[in-house]
Amino acid sequence: MFRTHTCGELRAADVNQEVTLAGWVQTVRKFGSITFVDLRDRYGITQLLFSEALNAQLDENPLGREFVLQATGKVNERSNKNKNIPTGDVELLVESFTILNKSVTPPFTIQDDTDGGDDLRMKYRYLDLRRNAVKKNLELRYAVNRATRDYLHQQNFMDIETPFLIKSTPEGARDFVVPSRMNPGEFYALPQSPQTFKQLLMVSGYDRYYQIVKCFRDEDLRADRQPEFTQIDCEMAFVKQEDVLNMFENLIKYIFKTVKGIDYSEAVERMSWQEAMWQYGNDKPDIRFGMKLLNIKYPRHVFADKEENAHLVDGADFQVFDAAETVIAIAVPGCSEYTRKQTDELTEWVKRPQIGMKGLVFIKCNADGTYKSSVDKFYSEEKLKAIADAAGAKAGDLVLILAGAEERTRKATSELRLEMGKRLGFRKDDEFKLLWVLDFPLFEYAEEENRWVARHHPFTSPKPSDIDTMINNNPAIENAAEYLKHPYANIKANAYDMVLNGNEIGGGSIRIYQKELQQKMFEALGMDAEEQQHKFGFLLGAFEYGAPPHGGIAFGFDRLCSIMGGSESIRDFIAFPKNNSGRDVMLDAPSAIDDKQFTELQIKLDLKD
Amino acid sequence: MFRTHTCGELRAADVNQEVTLAGWVQTVRKFGSITFVDLRDRYGITQLLFSEALNAQLDENPLGREFVLQATGKVNERSNKNKNIPTGDVELLVESFTILNKSVTPPFTIQDDTDGGDDLRMKYRYLDLRRNAVKKNLELRYAVNRATRDYLHQQNFMDIETPFLIKSTPEGARDFVVPSRMNPGEFYALPQSPQTFKQLLMVSGYDRYYQIVKCFRDEDLRADRQPEFTQIDCEMAFVKQEDVLNMFENLIKYIFKTVKGIDYSEAVERMSWQEAMWQYGNDKPDIRFGMKLLNIKYPRHVFADKEENAHLVDGADFQVFDAAETVIAIAVPGCSEYTRKQTDELTEWVKRPQIGMKGLVFIKCNADGTYKSSVDKFYSEEKLKAIADAAGAKAGDLVLILAGAEERTRKATSELRLEMGKRLGFRKDDEFKLLWVLDFPLFEYAEEENRWVARHHPFTSPKPSDIDTMINNNPAIENAAEYLKHPYANIKANAYDMVLNGNEIGGGSIRIYQKELQQKMFEALGMDAEEQQHKFGFLLGAFEYGAPPHGGIAFGFDRLCSIMGGSESIRDFIAFPKNNSGRDVMLDAPSAIDDKQFTELQIKLDLKD
Repeated sequence: MFRTHTCGELRAADVNQEVTLAGWVQTVRKFGSITFVDLRDRYGITQLLFSEALNAQLDENPLGREFVLQATGKVNERSNKNKNIPTGDVELLVESFTILNKSVTPPFTIQDDTDGGDDLRMKYRYLDLRRNAVKKNLELRYAVNRATRDYLHQQNFMDIETPFLIKSTPEGARDFVVPSRMNPGEFYALPQSPQTFKQLLMVSGYDRYYQIVKCFRDEDLRADRQPEFTQIDCEMAFVKQEDVLNMFENLIKYIFKTVKGIDYSEAVERMSWQEAMWQYGNDKPDIRFGMKLLNIKYPRHVFADKEENAHLVDGADFQVFDAAETVIAIAVPGCSEYTRKQTDELTEWVKRPQIGMKGLVFIKCNADGTYKSSVDKFYSEEKLKAIADAAGAKAGDLVLILAGAEERTRKATSELRLEMGKRLGFRKDDEFKLLWVLDFPLFEYAEEENRWVARHHPFTSPKPSDIDTMINNNPAIENAAEYLKHPYANIKANAYDMVLNGNEIGGGSIRIYQKELQQKMFEALGMDAEEQQHKFGFLLGAFEYGAPPHGGIAFGFDRLCSIMGGSESIRDFIAFPKNNSGRDVMLDAPSAIDDKQFTELQIKLDLKD
Repeated sequence: MFRTHTCGELRAADVNQEVTLAGWVQTVRKFGSITFVDLRDRYGITQLLFSEALNAQLDENPLGREFVLQATGKVNERSNKNKNIPTGDVELLVESFTILNKSVTPPFTIQDDTDGGDDLRMKYRYLDLRRNAVKKNLELRYAVNRATRDYLHQQNFMDIETPFLIKSTPEGARDFVVPSRMNPGEFYALPQSPQTFKQLLMVSGYDRYYQIVKCFRDEDLRADRQPEFTQIDCEMAFVKQEDVLNMFENLIKYIFKTVKGIDYSEAVERMSWQEAMWQYGNDKPDIRFGMKLLNIKYPRHVFADKEENAHLVDGADFQVFDAAETVIAIAVPGCSEYTRKQTDELTEWVKRPQIGMKGLVFIKCNADGTYKSSVDKFYSEEKLKAIADAAGAKAGDLVLILAGAEERTRKATSELRLEMGKRLGFRKDDEFKLLWVLDFPLFEYAEEENRWVARHHPFTSPKPSDIDTMINNNPAIENAAEYLKHPYANIKANAYDMVLNGNEIGGGSIRIYQKELQQKMFEALGMDAEEQQHKFGFLLGAFEYGAPPHGGIAFGFDRLCSIMGGSESIRDFIAFPKNNSGRDVMLDAPSAIDDKQFTELQIKLDLKD
């Protein structure tokens, strides 16, 4: 060993001990004839004191930032202690030292607040990883990993590795494929998830399976998506939805406790998908704050059992509301005194292409009980008050109203709510709110192909009460315009998403385990018997030999870590991430391959111009 | 939950409890009006008793093997207890039952001794995994996984995930490559190991890293090799070889203790690569038994410092020995009375193409002190005795002698030794002997290219005492015939292999961390500066910014598990293995992909006829 102790280890009790440290030079400070060096490693920083006697040697071997240094000497009590670091009571009186390796000047400073931009830090990721901020993220990631394994082990889950070179069965997302040299003309696919394997393991009787495992999706990368990502992947046999919810909300609570010291003792809230859409305009609502949506007008065929408030806006000849399919309001607390400039800015905000609204209506609920609105000329103060009251606004609040086509308007109002929540400080990094979203529709309608697609995936079971509906009806859609009247449109999935602070951190379902039902599902998705057999013959086969009821969940590990770490960016929690073009700029990958590789794989390029 | 207890849980103390079990029907036995069913799950087997009252229901819903059954009733003490299973004191008096799923007749029996052949079992792997024999293997694998993580965690190692989509830098083995849709014409490679990433993590200061991680090699598959395999991958900074050896022999001892209950308290033996080759003809000797090699003749330029025994065979006009480069004997205990048929069979054995020898010479050391040999006409009894004595043979032993070219003869003698050890029962599945093999040559000579290749990999450091030799000599080989005289031929690597029962279970090295030395290594391997920069620019770059001394090891996880489980086949310890053509016969992968995929990836097939 090049050291007897780490740089985070020495304390007052170690004074007078002879020790050797090794680490990186963080700073060099010369005071007259003596030199102080802060030596850094993974565990901390220890101050080294080079006395005058070493000056000749230091002159011959000058130290620089990020040099790798080994130093031996006695532990000394410091006269002016540094209370900010655990080793601050002591320093090392250096007797001898060796420069183990030199460093040229780093392209950015190795500090929490580095001067390096994103591109530079990614190119020199091995230096970026030295920064304390990044190290803390990876340490948190390891702690979450460890806590997850401990909890699942205690609950009798077994880590069973599933293969990475599998079969391409592109359903939703695109597969990455791998040409097989030994089987020319054929390709493996990298798994988008171990879904079918974990189901097979249930058929095999393994009962409780888990894996923390890399998955791959060849999708166009939106900000903060990675082509390879990590899942906590779990499956259980002989369970119903309630069992899965209990098991895994306790997993997350265990992680909170172990990793963050947070007692999340309250019950995890639950909400149906429809309520989430109704109250928050979003299937993953951030429930750290209220500001719920007031649906003034909405399409009755989507939200049939809801109270209509259209009378609040109807009949005032305000064309925008009259023509709108949907009108939704939120009451923003304490913002009634927004200036014209501020409301204009909000209007511009909702008109940005990402939000895509035509305008914004507001009602100021003044502190003195009066109301002021951008649509004063259409609505009396009484009407304005009625709308504001219905939206739950109090004196001092600002009511914001969006109107337009249902889907876009609902989404936009949700975005506006989140934005206002953020601006007003309602979305705190250190406050955590879990939520189960339940009762999703099993199917979505794919307009282009005039058929159903699975909202979750094709292995998700309908609610037990909907199985007969699914079995006994023809999935074909005769009348595209009236697809919502097809019996399949109302089938609910036995599926659940876990939402943390407005992020979907996990999702799962009770699975289909009956061959006939699985075939019906494949049929609904437009697969004929031959295609079913070609793609999923092994699964349909497995269901013939005694498949047990089963269900599971998968958590997005990168996302879970980033939210636990109070960050929006998953990249900061991945040791070697890729950029938005799927490139590793440090490695310069992907890259061209040799002719020999093409020849062996029996493929060639077919580049479009 | 579909159950209150598992099928392995109920005991005498549970008698009279009302419980519900769920599992698979192992057997159905009818005795008069009552029916016994053995119900199986991951945890065990519990006997169910269906009384006469349920007969009508059973007639309507007949049970069959591998049906999934849920049964509720009272726990009953059995009159004739089954001492062989933990639940054997009780049975479940069924009050009601539900068939959760049916099963058609499985293609083979779900038993330890199944009637299913390899192909059938692989096709229906989900049924094969139900067999107790396979389940025990996967449970052992999980236990080794768990013990590994626990030990490394205690030792401050951090699990840090490294990427799977990296850059193709084919050195030794072939890479699997992945076409990048977003970067047309470019490819990722799947990692053969996280080698360079773990070194970068050391440069980043992470100090102690580990991962249990999938790796990929596109090699022609010999029996029991898999295109994807799992490594326990570890790296440490600020260490010397001795530190690594101690850390990781203690890991293996911890696994022995935790998983197998074996106290491996003795010191792990160590042997230089040269001694292993000299004494066992093998760089991964099985030291559970002796029968060491006696080198009678050997090439002096390879084993310069060894005692020559050629006088024992020289000058007898026995052309085979006189012409041979190498003559090696082993003394097989207690086999002097082998019949002609037996020695003939051994002769045929060494003549098989896999062994490739021209013949076998033997000396029987009879119990009465006389000697009898296949080369009696060349050697007097006195000479035969001298050879036998030198080989360490006692009365009753059989000396076997092979002669020929050095490399082949040494390998063949090693194979013969292992075969005889196996036949004589010296290689016990439940005896475990660890060995470190040290001091490997750093380079091997590649005849075709007349250059050096790295024996371990290009990141392995030479012994500290050999660094000057490496730096100060030109790696080019002027005289191919005399390559052994090149200074590089004698450079030893700072590398180590861990051998368990004749299998290399792990290997590693102290790494190069100096840029100049790494460049010299690349140069020795025939890479010019441009190629170095293209392939490993990131690593050479990292070495400029303060790289610490570091080293590590990687264990073959599949192999380690199989040896711990007393099996020769790693396939039995992998949930979903591939066959020798790299195919997953259950999935039928690899397979053809869609035209759309080719178009998107901008590649096409280029099949040879």
